[in-house]
Amino acid sequence: MLSKRMNKLGTENAFQVALRAARHQEEGNIVYPFHLGDLNFKTPEPVTEAMFKAVRDGKTGYCPAAGIMPLRAALAEEINATRKTAFTPESVLIQTGGKPVIAKFLLGFMNEGDEVLFPNPGFPIYESFIEFLGGTAKPYGFLETERGYAIDIEALEKAITPKTTCIIVNDFQNPTGSEASKEEREKLAELILKHNLTALIDEAYFDIRYEGKSTSVLEIEEVREHCVLLYTFSKKFAMTGWRVGAMIAPEKYIPQLSKLNVNIESCTPHFTQYGALAALALPESENKKIIDELRIRRDLAVTLLNEVDGVHCPSPNCAFYLYPNVTKLMAKKGFGGDYAAFAEDVLVKTGVSFCTREHFGKKQAHETENFVRLAFSGVNAEQIAKACKALKEYAQ
Amino acid sequence: MLSKRMNKLGTENAFQVALRAARHQEEGNIVYPFHLGDLNFKTPEPVTEAMFKAVRDGKTGYCPAAGIMPLRAALAEEINATRKTAFTPESVLIQTGGKPVIAKFLLGFMNEGDEVLFPNPGFPIYESFIEFLGGTAKPYGFLETERGYAIDIEALEKAITPKTTCIIVNDFQNPTGSEASKEEREKLAELILKHNLTALIDEAYFDIRYEGKSTSVLEIEEVREHCVLLYTFSKKFAMTGWRVGAMIAPEKYIPQLSKLNVNIESCTPHFTQYGALAALALPESENKKIIDELRIRRDLAVTLLNEVDGVHCPSPNCAFYLYPNVTKLMAKKGFGGDYAAFAEDVLVKTGVSFCTREHFGKKQAHETENFVRLAFSGVNAEQIAKACKALKEYAQ
Repeated sequence: MLSKRMNKLGTENAFQVALRAARHQEEGNIVYPFHLGDLNFKTPEPVTEAMFKAVRDGKTGYCPAAGIMPLRAALAEEINATRKTAFTPESVLIQTGGKPVIAKFLLGFMNEGDEVLFPNPGFPIYESFIEFLGGTAKPYGFLETERGYAIDIEALEKAITPKTTCIIVNDFQNPTGSEASKEEREKLAELILKHNLTALIDEAYFDIRYEGKSTSVLEIEEVREHCVLLYTFSKKFAMTGWRVGAMIAPEKYIPQLSKLNVNIESCTPHFTQYGALAALALPESENKKIIDELRIRRDLAVTLLNEVDGVHCPSPNCAFYLYPNVTKLMAKKGFGGDYAAFAEDVLVKTGVSFCTREHFGKKQAHETENFVRLAFSGVNAEQIAKACKALKEYAQ
Repeated sequence: MLSKRMNKLGTENAFQVALRAARHQEEGNIVYPFHLGDLNFKTPEPVTEAMFKAVRDGKTGYCPAAGIMPLRAALAEEINATRKTAFTPESVLIQTGGKPVIAKFLLGFMNEGDEVLFPNPGFPIYESFIEFLGGTAKPYGFLETERGYAIDIEALEKAITPKTTCIIVNDFQNPTGSEASKEEREKLAELILKHNLTALIDEAYFDIRYEGKSTSVLEIEEVREHCVLLYTFSKKFAMTGWRVGAMIAPEKYIPQLSKLNVNIESCTPHFTQYGALAALALPESENKKIIDELRIRRDLAVTLLNEVDGVHCPSPNCAFYLYPNVTKLMAKKGFGGDYAAFAEDVLVKTGVSFCTREHFGKKQAHETENFVRLAFSGVNAEQIAKACKALKEYAQ
């Protein structure tokens, strides 16, 4: 018989959108797949070649549970250079992607009955795994501002109680594409210290940005001892299917946290880590190729979506998601707040497949506007143009 | 601050043996590494080539959380052919190795406060993860018989209480090399049914055997609905560092269990699954090459160890571990039950590095004899001969 905790396990309902889109396509229709959070780019050849070499060199046996030392060292250096931190190689625990860092952060720091703050709208796995492990998931939201979306810090602060022990921060955010401002980060750090919280800093999209340079809440030195960083190789170099990431934490926690690796999976696949090592050594130009293509898609999609009647779409500076406000379009089409019916209607009439606000957590009480999420990582410019044309006609 | 459950997390202390051996070697000494549970064989080329092809074909993005369908189908077929079962492809959930199946079995089926029966001596992760998740780990032991080691079924039955909900069975066992007899399996099945237990059947070493053919407790049809099978690609084809395995369970549990994959790691690396698929298609001769070499090592090691004064070593028909009784040798050398001092003395005086009974769980009250574990998977015949010669001189 399944355990009781299995009743509390959520999932990514985006997979159901993918299934629906696939069925629509099989029925002979054109589908524009804006629901995918995957990248339609090839992993750069020096990365794949480095992995092939590792396999030929016999790196097919177990490696240390915490990861191969050259990768831990190179990643510590990368993090220190980009976040102005001072992590040692020993602070880095290699993982099979970014997601295991969420599970291990909650296993490692959250007790049953603890309250954990998490972003909503946000990546649905946060809430799912908090509840699964017997914690209480407490959402905090975002506000539409002139520079995009910003954390509703005031509401977040009010949600903290004596039972709150952890907070999850997803800077460079999925689905809103928002990035915390300096003031937001200072306020976050202040709250973390004041309430002695442990924070998961999920920066999965740190290296996917279009103007300027990403900076991190970890630049605030005082807060570092309270933070666990989620790093992933998935996005920057189109390596989602490789499943290589890392948990970077204060060194005092590492002996215990690395036991989670020993217990749960022995180690991350050995040879893929040599691919990741080669990825860190790639010139900036390799990442720039991907970013330049994504920027073209973003600009085109934002421009064309804003021409659709009843849609307002801010232009995000990070990640590869658009989070347009579609309140007026939904009202005009008679859907009110019924996202499922709206998405189905759009899919059938235009072929455009996307996720909605509901795929990123339960709608909060104060929310009156409606949003959908379109990923531009898996569609090319031609598909974007055709999809937006179809949407424009649909909205008329 | 770390969660309370982290205090209960154990580990594989065999890693400390590896560290000690490495230090001894760095100090200029010869080391015979009998502590390693890894294989010093190359993964067969058709397997690596199939993975390279998958990478070149762009299988570098996400794949379904449950694994690629061709692999699930081929593995269902393999299991059905070797275990006389009738699993559908949908019953197979691909995992990053065998170990995640242990964690997911306990997350999925054990409630806090439940009692779980597990083999002791046995793989140390069972006890560690049961306790970590708030269960009570209840050991069952083995008896020395004329055909090797056998489960102490009588003691096992006595250990069952109304709180017992799960049992872990490691057939083809690490460290004893024991294989359940037909009678043991029938009795196990009877107890599982009688007490309505859910069983993890860990058959990691199913394909590592020297005479005859492996059979499974799953051949008993009535018990299948109560069983979750652990399968791993690690041992049969020298793929430990690939981290590919599978959880095979009654189909009714799959929708929920696959959510654990979605939550914990998204998916197993995409392209490694094509390697595993090629491994299933290899002719028996590829596995035979490995088995033949292992058999030579086993026979040599067993013969020579039995010539060491104070050592009695049964010859196992499965897995690649020897579990000799060293009670007399330890007594003669004045170590009584002090395994750590004995192992250190042997390492320093002979270079032979091995694990002891204590690396496989806490010694049980009724145990009076002393055992060590020697793996012959990572040493060649020459090393075995030299190591045993050194042990013989040490014992004189």
